[in-house]
Amino acid sequence: MYTTDTICAIATAERGAIGIVRISGNDAITAADRIFTPKHGKPLRERPANSVIFGIISDDDDEIIDEVLATVFRAPHSYTGEDSVELACHGSRYILNKVLELLLKNGCRMANPGEYTQRAYLNGKMDLSQAEAVADLIASNSRASHRIAMNQMRGGISNKLADLRMKLLHLTSLLELELDFSDHEDLAFADRTELKNLTEEIVTEIERLTANFKHGNALKNGISVAIIGAPNVGKSTLLNALLRDSRAIVSNISGTTRDLIEDTREIDGVLFRFIDTAGLRETGDEIEQMGIERSVQAAKKAQIILLVTEPEVAYPIIETDEEQIVIKILNKTDDFQALHGIGIEWLETELIKVVPKINDDSVLITNLRHKQALENAYEAISRAKISIIHDISPDLVAEDLRLCVSFLGEIVGKINSDDILQNIFSHFCIGK
Amino acid sequence: MYTTDTICAIATAERGAIGIVRISGNDAITAADRIFTPKHGKPLRERPANSVIFGIISDDDDEIIDEVLATVFRAPHSYTGEDSVELACHGSRYILNKVLELLLKNGCRMANPGEYTQRAYLNGKMDLSQAEAVADLIASNSRASHRIAMNQMRGGISNKLADLRMKLLHLTSLLELELDFSDHEDLAFADRTELKNLTEEIVTEIERLTANFKHGNALKNGISVAIIGAPNVGKSTLLNALLRDSRAIVSNISGTTRDLIEDTREIDGVLFRFIDTAGLRETGDEIEQMGIERSVQAAKKAQIILLVTEPEVAYPIIETDEEQIVIKILNKTDDFQALHGIGIEWLETELIKVVPKINDDSVLITNLRHKQALENAYEAISRAKISIIHDISPDLVAEDLRLCVSFLGEIVGKINSDDILQNIFSHFCIGK
Repeated sequence: MYTTDTICAIATAERGAIGIVRISGNDAITAADRIFTPKHGKPLRERPANSVIFGIISDDDDEIIDEVLATVFRAPHSYTGEDSVELACHGSRYILNKVLELLLKNGCRMANPGEYTQRAYLNGKMDLSQAEAVADLIASNSRASHRIAMNQMRGGISNKLADLRMKLLHLTSLLELELDFSDHEDLAFADRTELKNLTEEIVTEIERLTANFKHGNALKNGISVAIIGAPNVGKSTLLNALLRDSRAIVSNISGTTRDLIEDTREIDGVLFRFIDTAGLRETGDEIEQMGIERSVQAAKKAQIILLVTEPEVAYPIIETDEEQIVIKILNKTDDFQALHGIGIEWLETELIKVVPKINDDSVLITNLRHKQALENAYEAISRAKISIIHDISPDLVAEDLRLCVSFLGEIVGKINSDDILQNIFSHFCIGK
Repeated sequence: MYTTDTICAIATAERGAIGIVRISGNDAITAADRIFTPKHGKPLRERPANSVIFGIISDDDDEIIDEVLATVFRAPHSYTGEDSVELACHGSRYILNKVLELLLKNGCRMANPGEYTQRAYLNGKMDLSQAEAVADLIASNSRASHRIAMNQMRGGISNKLADLRMKLLHLTSLLELELDFSDHEDLAFADRTELKNLTEEIVTEIERLTANFKHGNALKNGISVAIIGAPNVGKSTLLNALLRDSRAIVSNISGTTRDLIEDTREIDGVLFRFIDTAGLRETGDEIEQMGIERSVQAAKKAQIILLVTEPEVAYPIIETDEEQIVIKILNKTDDFQALHGIGIEWLETELIKVVPKINDDSVLITNLRHKQALENAYEAISRAKISIIHDISPDLVAEDLRLCVSFLGEIVGKINSDDILQNIFSHFCIGK
């Protein structure tokens, strides 16, 4: 599937001071030379790698499109591993589109979403889990999500899996050696106790990795916190206090909030998604009733529920599942006054307590594809474990171990299917 | 007002694949070195100008913020004319803000809007009209507006004014020479006929420049075209046909359009702003009446009015001023059927005919500040012209000529007021 044709795309968002057009492929430098004239000196193809040259881009009628800085990269020392040029233009949509248009006329084609990173992967600049982390890194919006993505991009998952795969391959090769000498029934190269211990170790390791998927995902996407309670107990005031902003309209009239109001705040490096809801009560007002229905749904989906009430009013009764965390808040007391910010610091501490700690070296799985591959690997290694315990023929054990290795390999990109790759990179933005 | 402290800002829009942080000032390179570690080799301060270096940015706790490309520029060969560094990061808002935060901790301050271009101007990299063109270039959205801005940025106005100013200074010095020898009444260094002719030439030139302000501005901002007519004659259908899009809701019910609907399209390099309006008729419906009132207002402001009707229905009567251009359209006939796109090409040609042609070398004034300076210059040179005709004392003529030179000089930045500069650059985006 790897082609070496030359691709181009705008790599920056619209309406900035600077806009960048990225060109990569065998002809990147010659294509750029066709539209770029340096102010002084030699064309790009005669420039050293990693140098920046000032010049103009002009069209076939010699109309000047822009004054730009061109940066030349040479294979394999570029993001994609190919020859590349980056043109830093003035950030006008008109100019950037015009530059693309000229490149398309001069032998380039539009890049697909994520195609630069895909080429980087196919050229061995990074493995697949690292490539996936690039998109996560760009989307990261809190210290936690940034740290997870950065760790993955710099090989956190890759190293962990390489370690597991090496152990598995060691076991498998011992078993296969036995199979080669299967005439000699008394020969057992692989110590059965060692084999069992190692298998168990791997089972535990995979269990640990899949178990933290939920946590990892929450940290990556933000932890949802629904504020639930009767009307007029101060839910919107609490939202505003938590956001340190006047996001929700607050009034003394019961039923002021109808739509779900949602906003995020980073507390201690973790992104929380706070959802203010309509007050729960019996009502004849149809629109309010719809709002209440949405509150109930929001409560069901939230990871954390802040159950708010005030003195003399009972806490609302809602169903929760065992994984949801409920924090009860008695508002309008000496200990907690959302309106005056009293108790908010305590609440923030409670929220943070709920969040799993991430250590610098702990590997978190946040990608569904990785989780599914781990689950498949887990099945295979579990079967192998049982076979070893029951002293089943080594060839079956070896087959399951090989299968486990192969599932783990999928995560870092040892796959043969183009579809999977296409699917992964189609979720990237264009220009990355 | 020029300070050499080191400034930093994000120079790209949010949410792109690549985000750029720009640093400029005496300490730009050392500040960047404090947060940047090259993957291989020497720190930025030991790198040659215009080179690109791959490395990581990390914070005080050695947490890696991003893998970036750093480009080093050295004074005076940079955009600002100062030492500069550009950090090309992953385009995550979290990362870019974090990088800024680190730079602020390491001796940089946040750049004001347009401060990079302001420094470029103050360092003599461009004059003021060129600096102003940078913002216009970034905002350009059609071939015409792009060409005007590019011409201005590359010195179109500057050269034209330099030419005028040189002629004026030549005249003035001749006159002043006469004044020095004023004891000798018979000495006239400045030939009065030549003086009169040159003054007239300059008067005409300034007239020409101010006259095209309106055209230039229309080309820069788009030409407004109001579609006016009775209800249900096909105004919204015409808008959609012109936009080649289904922008307006079309129905057979009279009065479907109430709000003004506006959208732009580039035809032959010129941006047109089409405004669909509510059908003009007597109505008791209050909301519709408000819509009709807006139609009348839109018609008053538009540069071109498309007066639409259908057979058997009279054209609506509206007041126009003499500068407005009215194009009458009889819809729903063999020659014109907006619904089927018949006649649209003809209409596009008519629209384009209205637009003044811009030649590559014609200088268009599109900036109100320039226009006002030209008007002041015009007053002064006109007074001088009259004085010459009436043979008034050369010292008064010389004074007016000097005044004219000074007003023309304002355009390219020969001004002493910091307020004017502040005002100009405050309209730039941050990072430019």
